[in-house]
Amino acid sequence: MTALAAASFGYLCHVFTPEADAPAAQVCASVTVADWRDEAALARFAAGCDVVTYEFENIPAHVAHFVATQAPMRPGADVLAVCQDRIAEKTFLGAIGVPTTCWQPVRQADGLARALAQTGRPAVLKTARLGYDGKGQVPIRDDTDLAAAWAEMAAAGDPEAVVEAWVSFDLEVSVIVARSQTGAIATYVPVENRHEGHVLRCTIAPAAIVPSMARRADAIARHVAEKLGLVGVLAVEMFVGRDGSLLVNELAPRPHNSGHWTIDACACSQFEQCVRAVAGLPLGPTERHADAVMENLLGAEAGRWSELVADPAARVHLYGKREARPGRKMGHVTRLSPRR
Amino acid sequence: MTALAAASFGYLCHVFTPEADAPAAQVCASVTVADWRDEAALARFAAGCDVVTYEFENIPAHVAHFVATQAPMRPGADVLAVCQDRIAEKTFLGAIGVPTTCWQPVRQADGLARALAQTGRPAVLKTARLGYDGKGQVPIRDDTDLAAAWAEMAAAGDPEAVVEAWVSFDLEVSVIVARSQTGAIATYVPVENRHEGHVLRCTIAPAAIVPSMARRADAIARHVAEKLGLVGVLAVEMFVGRDGSLLVNELAPRPHNSGHWTIDACACSQFEQCVRAVAGLPLGPTERHADAVMENLLGAEAGRWSELVADPAARVHLYGKREARPGRKMGHVTRLSPRR
Repeated sequence: MTALAAASFGYLCHVFTPEADAPAAQVCASVTVADWRDEAALARFAAGCDVVTYEFENIPAHVAHFVATQAPMRPGADVLAVCQDRIAEKTFLGAIGVPTTCWQPVRQADGLARALAQTGRPAVLKTARLGYDGKGQVPIRDDTDLAAAWAEMAAAGDPEAVVEAWVSFDLEVSVIVARSQTGAIATYVPVENRHEGHVLRCTIAPAAIVPSMARRADAIARHVAEKLGLVGVLAVEMFVGRDGSLLVNELAPRPHNSGHWTIDACACSQFEQCVRAVAGLPLGPTERHADAVMENLLGAEAGRWSELVADPAARVHLYGKREARPGRKMGHVTRLSPRR
Repeated sequence: MTALAAASFGYLCHVFTPEADAPAAQVCASVTVADWRDEAALARFAAGCDVVTYEFENIPAHVAHFVATQAPMRPGADVLAVCQDRIAEKTFLGAIGVPTTCWQPVRQADGLARALAQTGRPAVLKTARLGYDGKGQVPIRDDTDLAAAWAEMAAAGDPEAVVEAWVSFDLEVSVIVARSQTGAIATYVPVENRHEGHVLRCTIAPAAIVPSMARRADAIARHVAEKLGLVGVLAVEMFVGRDGSLLVNELAPRPHNSGHWTIDACACSQFEQCVRAVAGLPLGPTERHADAVMENLLGAEAGRWSELVADPAARVHLYGKREARPGRKMGHVTRLSPRR
């Protein structure tokens, strides 16, 4: 979707991907299919690019650092390093005064009990890296066997973890924030995200929160973007507590699933915004002309597209993925309604 | 832009083009660069397609007929045959009761005087085929040398012509109409088109015409689409006379420059509508959420993009054409305003 937005400005895109069948390759002028470890391929790729960005934060850090030596990369490798590691991310958030859940780093199995003594139970054990859509997350209750929990987490492939106090929250919201090369910042309205089995089910724009809460969420997103030195687009996920608290849960330094509604409800989508930021253009407008509900089409649900496409109120987007594996994000549908 | 719309539905596009540098190739999964006369290449291309459409009506008729024997082509070769030849087009329009300017076919130089006796002067001599953006058009006034006019027209490469009575009109409007495989028809609101040197300068959506005139324009477009047996998108250009007359000037069986505003002002653009029609999907909604003024960026005007992209009210589209030749359509900018 970023490539489609870039094409509207006449930019030529080149995608580097380890997957032979990457959807982005269907809409790019050039594609390099190679392993992350293939530095020669990375160097050739970067040499042909005026600017490099990424749409996935689980790119190996050394790859990001290497590419950044070959071509301008936006957001920078340092932003990626913060956002791809829960320990770095929560440390950063704490240092800039942004509230998170109570958490502790856990670097080896025998540190888990000590960490839990700080956070209390229930809690969640999460890999520090490589986790998304709930992968590498293990809930810890009073009766949970800690060795088994550690083994389950470690099976996701990362030797480091965090443990987070369980938060009971009213709803999860996110703010998509963009920051340009000149430091200008623009945000989309806070939205509510509903998950099912750790995977985003739907996004409701705007979130049904009071204006003062919306302003706080917006201010947090702007503060994070500024302190990160972001150039690009960032999603800031937050928990809204029953006590009126607002805790940042996660950062994603790229267009985010919870911003897909902007394609249909805003003149300038989060994808165009990303292209503008990384290409050094001024940011676009973030006002919406409609309220929106975005629903993901997961796995076999993509089969509903032929019924959805007949509904004049539904804007259907499919990603050109060949295989509809269970839970895989195959597309989404956005329904617009008049602004409240 | 059609390929971008198709990609949003996850469709893979394959473009056949005689140009090595075709912009569509930048956003398609596959491209075949070959001459129109290369039947083997056309056959290989068609064999890989579920459905073929075209975005230009000056494709040689024999090519369209050949491709249509190899794969479903929508709109059909018969629609293209009507719309790419002014004699066939005006004959068709007359036969279905749609008013046009007074016209006469002219098949050789010595028929011109006879034709002008029917149409009167001033008139316009136009090639029957291959004309667009004013190419192959010669005005004929009382003192025009007919042999010279014929020679000038014939230099555009077509041995046949029409002569049309000069119409003095208030404004030119067009209606973009889509028709699905099941015969459902949808139209966008009539728009006003302003030309400069025969090239579209801007489109104003909606056209400032009285509702009864808008209804007549809409009805004409629907009638033409139905009688053509169109499956796809068609632009119907019309002159609005000072006397309240409405004369059809030209048909284009494809997404049209005067429909580019729909990308930004409608949930479903003319390009998505084209994809829906040719792929056998139901048509999408055609309501606009905003009024719009679309301005073409011609030749060096594309250089204004960096200023335009800073204007939050301007939606900028560039086509990825390398060379900004004078008068060449390099992109467009659409400005939205609240619906009147």
